[in-house]
Amino acid sequence: MSFSFQLLHTDPTGARLGRLTTPHGVIDTPCFMPVGTAATVKGITQDVLESLDVQILLANTYHLFLRPGHELIRSLGGLHQFMAWPRAILTDSGGYQVFSLADLRKVAEDGVTFRSHLDGAEYFLSPETAAEIQIALGADIFMVLDECIETPAPRDAAARAAARTFAWAQRSREYFAAHGDAQRQAQFGIVQGATFDDLRRESTDQITSLDFPGYAIGGLAVGEPHEITCAMTVEASARLPKEKPRYLMGVGYPEQLADYVARGVDMMDCVLPTRSARNGLLFTSAGRLNIRNARFAADPLPLDENCSCMVCRRYSRAYLRHLVQANEILAAILATHHNLFFYLDLMRRLRSAIAADSLASFSSQFLSQLATPSE
Amino acid sequence: MSFSFQLLHTDPTGARLGRLTTPHGVIDTPCFMPVGTAATVKGITQDVLESLDVQILLANTYHLFLRPGHELIRSLGGLHQFMAWPRAILTDSGGYQVFSLADLRKVAEDGVTFRSHLDGAEYFLSPETAAEIQIALGADIFMVLDECIETPAPRDAAARAAARTFAWAQRSREYFAAHGDAQRQAQFGIVQGATFDDLRRESTDQITSLDFPGYAIGGLAVGEPHEITCAMTVEASARLPKEKPRYLMGVGYPEQLADYVARGVDMMDCVLPTRSARNGLLFTSAGRLNIRNARFAADPLPLDENCSCMVCRRYSRAYLRHLVQANEILAAILATHHNLFFYLDLMRRLRSAIAADSLASFSSQFLSQLATPSE
Repeated sequence: MSFSFQLLHTDPTGARLGRLTTPHGVIDTPCFMPVGTAATVKGITQDVLESLDVQILLANTYHLFLRPGHELIRSLGGLHQFMAWPRAILTDSGGYQVFSLADLRKVAEDGVTFRSHLDGAEYFLSPETAAEIQIALGADIFMVLDECIETPAPRDAAARAAARTFAWAQRSREYFAAHGDAQRQAQFGIVQGATFDDLRRESTDQITSLDFPGYAIGGLAVGEPHEITCAMTVEASARLPKEKPRYLMGVGYPEQLADYVARGVDMMDCVLPTRSARNGLLFTSAGRLNIRNARFAADPLPLDENCSCMVCRRYSRAYLRHLVQANEILAAILATHHNLFFYLDLMRRLRSAIAADSLASFSSQFLSQLATPSE
Repeated sequence: MSFSFQLLHTDPTGARLGRLTTPHGVIDTPCFMPVGTAATVKGITQDVLESLDVQILLANTYHLFLRPGHELIRSLGGLHQFMAWPRAILTDSGGYQVFSLADLRKVAEDGVTFRSHLDGAEYFLSPETAAEIQIALGADIFMVLDECIETPAPRDAAARAAARTFAWAQRSREYFAAHGDAQRQAQFGIVQGATFDDLRRESTDQITSLDFPGYAIGGLAVGEPHEITCAMTVEASARLPKEKPRYLMGVGYPEQLADYVARGVDMMDCVLPTRSARNGLLFTSAGRLNIRNARFAADPLPLDENCSCMVCRRYSRAYLRHLVQANEILAAILATHHNLFFYLDLMRRLRSAIAADSLASFSSQFLSQLATPSE
């Protein structure tokens, strides 16, 4: 089979070391997936992503559906060929963006009607069309459509959304069984249930009954306290099958990644390293650094003295700050490069720590080095 | 001496093959200098510039004087260290930008008073301060302050500006003799005279009397017909000393470069490849291509089928068009990379043609391949 997950080791914290095999390469887990919304990780070339050892990236179904359109991408050989990315890709279902970006949503049992945030045109997304679009895109891993709700959510709304997510997951699974190719793509189910322990458990038990090749934990890191995110992650991961990969959607800050990994998470994605970079916010081993700050104007040091990335080896904080002040494209390019290197390097170190059964001590050392944010 | 020019060969057209030695490396001439206005060539990293074999780039004194300021750059070790560029740099005098970008200019014999286009603050630039700023920046080659006038210019205005340019050149030369270091930097004089043959000849004879290590031809390619640009270039280059490098400022389109080279020009610079790239205009061996055009929406071909650059080897026109439509940073990055590769590759081919005494035939073949612009 072209898609498989091998669990190599579980450390005392519960953190898992694994290998996810896809038609477009092997991914060492736990992994962090850079977000390439519109078939590009903003501010960085595919060559550089390869040099950073990115093994899998995420692309957004909602954005690609609206522009340039999934049929165009299919006609050009699928997303890998379209964006000239030979390694693995995961697409989200489009659900989260419909619920957060689009206008005038109407959710019904059948699916969701919405207007494009680009031009106001009306579209309809159902479990079946979300699967159809993602089959056309051809990502190695793709997600079922789920209902995302605003948080904090009342219990009855959370229960209704979790129930609908399960009903939609069944329809997604059926559509893929009839129209998809399990040798080419793996479809992941999604656990919902907001911040309610019992709803999370129920949602996990329901979704695992459908026997997906992997599971995501959705609807978290949307404003709730970090301890709640961790607690909800545990509710799900304790009941998810050990032999399947687990993907915690939309996380997180560098100081949080080890917490999720320690709760049995294998895959994560977030816009933080790339979006923050474009705002001049850099992640370093000594904490966050807002390069716009005037105190960096004449600072000849690299962004992070402990970093071996191309940016830190070559450029000074003073130069980076100048580029940001002058609104130069190079500011986004270099900041994105550094932040992604930092995240991917952190994941490498987390994997080494898990292999050595030392995640807990690595994590406390890493956290102690993070100084007070310097913004 | 750390600065020297070696004329290796002159072909039947008058085109010159040379080697310009600077404290930051040797430059094969004729050369094209990418423009790095604010100490960055917009949209491209220094690593990639090196991989494109850029031997010298241009930075703008006016912009760096206003932001981040020449004293800051001096305190950080000069422009090379500030922008992490170990190869050669040329700075313009700031004059052209004062006359084209700044507000409320008042030109007097002493210098020019102007307001910053950034914040309206008032500044004064004289031949002496322009030299002082450029000594602080520390570029390998720097330019005297000249008076740039609007075109087309009446003869008396052109004559007055050329006379003032000469007077300012004398003061610039004296300032550099007293305060500069000829082992570290070479100061170039500038020929003016607008579109008047006799003024060009007079300006050339005046400026060469000051024995600069190199000469620029300024005030051209500012709207006059290409034949006039060529004719004025000939008026100057015929009287410039053969053993000194000649720099035609602010040119040009790919199809024009051979014309200038055939008129004895050794150095050129222009924002065209980089600025056009950011507007979606690509230069190819088959002519210009506006990638925004809808006919490229599903085009799987590379930008230029005869190009071996990283962009043409990896990405399709359809993908490039999508990136432009989606306002993605990667559009600017890839288009800039391709256009600069195209210019630098063209210069390599021009140098080979000169070495083989075949510039004329190379040039006519190159032009015949350029199809009608496809915009």
